Amino acid sequence: MAGDPPHVVIIGGGFGGLTVAKALWRVPVRVTLIDRRNHHLFQPLLYQVASGGLSPANIAAPLRAVLRKHQNVQVVLDEVRDIDLAGRRVRLPQRDITYDTLVVAAGVTHQYFGHPEWEALAPGLKNLEDATEMRRRILLAFERAEHEPDPAARAALLTFVVVGGGPTGVELAGVLGELSHQTLRKDFRNIDTRQARVLLVEGAPHILAAFPPDVAEQAERQLSTLGVTVRKLAHVVDVRPDGVTVKTGEQTEDIATRTVLWAAGVAASPLGAALAKSAGVEHDRCGRVPVEPDLTLKGHPEVFVIGDLASFTHQGGKPLPGVAPTAMQQGKYVARLIQSRVQGQPLPPPFEYKDLGSMATIGRGRAVAMLGKWKFRGYIAWLIWLFVHLINIVHFENRLLVMIQWAGNYFTRNRSARLITGDDNREPAA
Amino acid sequence: MAGDPPHVVIIGGGFGGLTVAKALWRVPVRVTLIDRRNHHLFQPLLYQVASGGLSPANIAAPLRAVLRKHQNVQVVLDEVRDIDLAGRRVRLPQRDITYDTLVVAAGVTHQYFGHPEWEALAPGLKNLEDATEMRRRILLAFERAEHEPDPAARAALLTFVVVGGGPTGVELAGVLGELSHQTLRKDFRNIDTRQARVLLVEGAPHILAAFPPDVAEQAERQLSTLGVTVRKLAHVVDVRPDGVTVKTGEQTEDIATRTVLWAAGVAASPLGAALAKSAGVEHDRCGRVPVEPDLTLKGHPEVFVIGDLASFTHQGGKPLPGVAPTAMQQGKYVARLIQSRVQGQPLPPPFEYKDLGSMATIGRGRAVAMLGKWKFRGYIAWLIWLFVHLINIVHFENRLLVMIQWAGNYFTRNRSARLITGDDNREPAA
Repeated sequence: MAGDPPHVVIIGGGFGGLTVAKALWRVPVRVTLIDRRNHHLFQPLLYQVASGGLSPANIAAPLRAVLRKHQNVQVVLDEVRDIDLAGRRVRLPQRDITYDTLVVAAGVTHQYFGHPEWEALAPGLKNLEDATEMRRRILLAFERAEHEPDPAARAALLTFVVVGGGPTGVELAGVLGELSHQTLRKDFRNIDTRQARVLLVEGAPHILAAFPPDVAEQAERQLSTLGVTVRKLAHVVDVRPDGVTVKTGEQTEDIATRTVLWAAGVAASPLGAALAKSAGVEHDRCGRVPVEPDLTLKGHPEVFVIGDLASFTHQGGKPLPGVAPTAMQQGKYVARLIQSRVQGQPLPPPFEYKDLGSMATIGRGRAVAMLGKWKFRGYIAWLIWLFVHLINIVHFENRLLVMIQWAGNYFTRNRSARLITGDDNREPAA
Repeated sequence: MAGDPPHVVIIGGGFGGLTVAKALWRVPVRVTLIDRRNHHLFQPLLYQVASGGLSPANIAAPLRAVLRKHQNVQVVLDEVRDIDLAGRRVRLPQRDITYDTLVVAAGVTHQYFGHPEWEALAPGLKNLEDATEMRRRILLAFERAEHEPDPAARAALLTFVVVGGGPTGVELAGVLGELSHQTLRKDFRNIDTRQARVLLVEGAPHILAAFPPDVAEQAERQLSTLGVTVRKLAHVVDVRPDGVTVKTGEQTEDIATRTVLWAAGVAASPLGAALAKSAGVEHDRCGRVPVEPDLTLKGHPEVFVIGDLASFTHQGGKPLPGVAPTAMQQGKYVARLIQSRVQGQPLPPPFEYKDLGSMATIGRGRAVAMLGKWKFRGYIAWLIWLFVHLINIVHFENRLLVMIQWAGNYFTRNRSARLITGDDNREPAA
């Protein structure tokens, strides 16, 4: 209909998609935000849910609540099956939604290096269900160890293997160290939880690839004070219900463990491959879609791809880091571009990523951070990390709750959310 | 072994069992607390989780954390299969635990009046998984209604039937009224959530059987201001995926609904029937075990049954209310009796229940309460309810968090924990 405001459809309510939806609030467009889940997730703190430090609701906000005052935004809880670029339609299971402008921000998931069968044995960490499943497995391992008479079986139950030495892997290994060395220490009667082994397996020559080697070494030293052993240049070549095989150089080693946590590999949403194919561009090894300097899909100025799903290589050639600031900067850029088009203003210059720094937390009072050329480590880095994450949590109410919960955890070294929920207390599916 | 302290085994970490375990802390006994779950649950607030007001961790505390300083207590996360009264053994799936004294506090679950097939269609509310499942169904119903073009189907999606007019049913109906009339009002674009119908079905002549009729009528009036319709002397005679049949007198009515919540009927843990059988006593209609005036099992002074699982009829003949104070009073009594026996002191007189009053909350600022002969309603009753529940939440940390969350909810009329988790956003199993 003539006169109807243009329809902007956004796929994905993560950092990228939500930023676009919010930034369009005064622009005369209709916005439809489609997500499979009803909540925006503050993914950087997901590992805290996995370790029982925070509750799911502390780091998630219902999309409808976040966008309540954005009268031009509709939230649709549904799964996108396909995108029809020619017909400008997004296909849902039961209906199609047509668009004038499309923003695809469907994100990424884990990759098991060609071994999808490992997924059931070694859960990744992308959503709340993943996090509560990890929490369940970690806590159940201690519970079973408490009543395991056989020393070898007990040792296997108290061995935790984290695959992947990026920020998530480092954070997971760190909290596992804290759990066993501090939080749970006095909770059990038959086992000494400090005897738990935490192994962090990383394929590269050092962990935290985004950091310079000296910072990574700092992180490694901090991890070792929590009882975490880092295995570098090492690859997991097999995952079984009762153990993993790790290959370091020519040497392979079988490690008996009942808990493997996956924090490696990136696989783009299948929408990426579908999109690349119909646009006739080549997606990268992980399924990410190459985008033009203005974040549009080649030949489709009405389609934007942002966040983890986009492969933006126009600055220096290497892809941007798959972190929240990248997605949010891209989201803001796209909203500005859409606004300029709608209001007939000059278009903004090509997208430019501003590196705000990197940080990784290792545990209570332990972190590494790089802001520009400044490097921080230990307590100061941790305070910076805390500050940055708190001011970025979406809802004020959540922010306050997270702060109090953390203050409580900090002083008591306790983790009040360490609940085992889900499939009763049955064995995890093998 | 001579000299070894006597072994007290407690089945169930609810209000009854946990009270016994804690009260025995200075008594020279070994205590083993067995529970299927790793947490104590503050059940009276479970409906708040079902409605997205609180997070699971707000109302649950890990048993190991609660009992950390109780060095004479072992926590065992396992399921009791059977009790061998003659051999004084509790049978777990993979081992037996022998006892000198046994306290059975295994609680109750829901009863579907001979229709176990209704359970999948109409979830009850006894544990955290139940609560998050209810939350998922309630929120999904609104989500689906938002995009349902057919008016009849939309009306069915916006119809909620709560079965059972006890405190839980009243609380659930009340929060459903609040959700649709207040919390969610501005979240949707296509539906007016205030058009949601909430129906509370009660078989008795009035709701809240524990209260006098005038208080129950007050509660009913307060419910109606939230848009809840109470159907009394009415019975649900059929539950289908797309509706229920309600029989009032001779009249039957089919009500199209997609969300039925069950808050009726009591079925004791199967351990009750097994216990009654081996002791040669008759369990009641709901499977509860009759107990002696000192809460022991007939002929087995070494076995106590407490809480919801016990049928104690020595005071005035009618069974005690199935609420937390009953279980806690019984737990304290049993701990004192065990202590007297172990230390060779005179035994306490028979158990006597002290009625501390009853209360039911209906919504924000709405409740009814009876303390002795004092009756309260509305805002004052709600403040009393709030106070009593806050001081009773197990962990200080939880108490503070719950208070803040509630304060936030109260002022914003928001419910930050309304997350849809679990089986993606698929249809609930029909």
